[in-house]
Amino acid sequence: MHNIVYLDHAAATPVSEKVLAAMLPYMTGDKFYNPGAAYLPAVQVRREYEQAKDRIAHAIGGKGSEILMTAGATESINLAFTAVGAVGLDSEILVSEIEHKSVMEAARNARSDFRTIRVTSGGIADLDDLRKKITPRTRLISVALVNGELGTVQPLSDIAAMVRAERERRLAIGDASPLWLHSDASQGVGLLDVHVARLGVDMLTLNAAKVYGPKQVGALWARAGIKLQPIVVGGGQESGLRSGTENVAGAVGLAMAIEEAERTKSSELQRVGELKTAFIASLYHTLHEKAIAEPKKVAIIGEKKRQLASFIPLTITGIDAERLVFALENRSVLVGTGAACAASRGEHSHVLRAIGLSDEQIAGSLRITLGKLNTLENTKRAAEIIAEEIAKECHRQFG
Amino acid sequence: MHNIVYLDHAAATPVSEKVLAAMLPYMTGDKFYNPGAAYLPAVQVRREYEQAKDRIAHAIGGKGSEILMTAGATESINLAFTAVGAVGLDSEILVSEIEHKSVMEAARNARSDFRTIRVTSGGIADLDDLRKKITPRTRLISVALVNGELGTVQPLSDIAAMVRAERERRLAIGDASPLWLHSDASQGVGLLDVHVARLGVDMLTLNAAKVYGPKQVGALWARAGIKLQPIVVGGGQESGLRSGTENVAGAVGLAMAIEEAERTKSSELQRVGELKTAFIASLYHTLHEKAIAEPKKVAIIGEKKRQLASFIPLTITGIDAERLVFALENRSVLVGTGAACAASRGEHSHVLRAIGLSDEQIAGSLRITLGKLNTLENTKRAAEIIAEEIAKECHRQFG
Repeated sequence: MHNIVYLDHAAATPVSEKVLAAMLPYMTGDKFYNPGAAYLPAVQVRREYEQAKDRIAHAIGGKGSEILMTAGATESINLAFTAVGAVGLDSEILVSEIEHKSVMEAARNARSDFRTIRVTSGGIADLDDLRKKITPRTRLISVALVNGELGTVQPLSDIAAMVRAERERRLAIGDASPLWLHSDASQGVGLLDVHVARLGVDMLTLNAAKVYGPKQVGALWARAGIKLQPIVVGGGQESGLRSGTENVAGAVGLAMAIEEAERTKSSELQRVGELKTAFIASLYHTLHEKAIAEPKKVAIIGEKKRQLASFIPLTITGIDAERLVFALENRSVLVGTGAACAASRGEHSHVLRAIGLSDEQIAGSLRITLGKLNTLENTKRAAEIIAEEIAKECHRQFG
Repeated sequence: MHNIVYLDHAAATPVSEKVLAAMLPYMTGDKFYNPGAAYLPAVQVRREYEQAKDRIAHAIGGKGSEILMTAGATESINLAFTAVGAVGLDSEILVSEIEHKSVMEAARNARSDFRTIRVTSGGIADLDDLRKKITPRTRLISVALVNGELGTVQPLSDIAAMVRAERERRLAIGDASPLWLHSDASQGVGLLDVHVARLGVDMLTLNAAKVYGPKQVGALWARAGIKLQPIVVGGGQESGLRSGTENVAGAVGLAMAIEEAERTKSSELQRVGELKTAFIASLYHTLHEKAIAEPKKVAIIGEKKRQLASFIPLTITGIDAERLVFALENRSVLVGTGAACAASRGEHSHVLRAIGLSDEQIAGSLRITLGKLNTLENTKRAAEIIAEEIAKECHRQFG
């Protein structure tokens, strides 16, 4: 690890030492008990599980009783979308066209119609398009807090205001049908304010794996009163909504990770912002030295003013990003190419297509995401190496 | 932990040091990468994930491509039951009436009718009853390898023979409808031979949490050709059957746990058998000293000849097992009372009811399960303490 510069924090983060230390007693230590058992040490473990949920809820301004633990963000999203199935068939779901595949597929899978909300060329949900598409049949709107490929922070409070207006309209005419706003906050926790009331959401998905917590651990916060349907049935844990022995270590890990994220978010946002500035300066400086006319070949995509500090999504028109990933890997720099799950199957990003990139631009896109494994020194060095390798590829390709 | 004698291994087992060591690099260490990423270190992690599946499969005589990782046994069981939904509506599922609640609920939840197979008073699936209940509509039979409350080893190969006969009958008349045998092997791995061909099963559920592996980690082995339906949709991992970033640490943990279980099963079976003999001798000896006429008040339930060596399920007629659990806990002896998830809600065991126990017997039942935390010394000591506390309760109650 020493020499590797990891620039793919949006794909995975290592479990922090603090989080691991909090989890271990529930794995190997003296708290490994089944939280369903009757004896006091197990009852204490159950109490700590409930406390972990309270801590998670507290970090986002919710209640512990509104938290459902899941095996990651995908299950949390699937669970959120069951709310629609519970309220009858004549319904519609709206999701932005740049949502992660898990949202797209959960929407497709729900017993409901589903339409997509257009986005701007900067990768922001188009509020006018959304306004037009909200109908009396709309039951659920799902827009991620931060897009996972572009890093664009979505206008959730504007969307929440529209949702409120539509609810009031329905109320006024005696229409009791529900309309909820769900958001996947997998990206953004640890840098942004993630507070359910301030965001105005009704359901929120959390993902431990992206905030230095354990993988396969997520949570769904769902406002009290929203009826969900179980995906997995059995022993009746999690109020019957998610059966199976509770993941105490995972819940405690997520609680610790999210508390740590909340505690450090201001300083980390500033630090990562400085790294991003330094990265871009260093990248363009080196590209210039190597005689690459950057605005033409190399561009940062996504609306800059609304982009999370940790994201530097690039397109290098005309080059093959995959070749570049391997060249960079040889120089110990690890960068992403869009969502990891899609990348592994060689699928082209629907997100980059939605913001209007050409096939050539999509084929030449990298996703650089900064985080705790980055220092000013390794970020600058990585930017130089990336610029050098881009230059090499460009010269090879275009002479 | 030092002085605690843990006698509830069927509810939970601690993660072994070896398993934890195998998992850590994928959590905090230099292998935390998202296995979907393109760079070589992540590709290597994906390879190790696939290898872990191969190792899990190899331990039970299957192929890695037939393994689906899940968040525990409950999800694995739910996934197995989707096979029925995939083959049309006019179908029936048979499960033994002493299956774990997760099997019962998954059967109830499947788009199919479901009937239960009777069991003997010893807690063994009644083969005559099963034979009568298999009809042309039967699609799935699910019987756990070892019952989780009684420890009774079920006659899977006899059931498999019936399944084969019914398949041949259908084949002969040109009926192409499938009939599968599923078994939850949560209990039994680590002491019994668990080999899919020798058991004759088509699907098998594994549970890391019961074999010194991580909690929230399970697997479904499903014979190639069985079509399952996803429960959780999204990025399309696990051949589209279980979306979400893969749990590499969990898969490696289960692989290590099951290999260790296989390696030590003969010696552990013998060791635990000796502990059980010593426990029973010590229990009855102390009861006798305390003037408790054991066969009347204290009985080991479940057919002895078919009971797994680690299980000592007791009924103490007329006393309140919950009081006893607390009394024992005060003396640092931790024992179970039926399935932990049901116990936590104060539900009476449907398993004990099915074998014909009275309410009074059920209320006075303890589940003692031995395992790696037990030594000859602490097992004998615990048996004495249990006998003493039973005697106290009996004298208190009956004078």
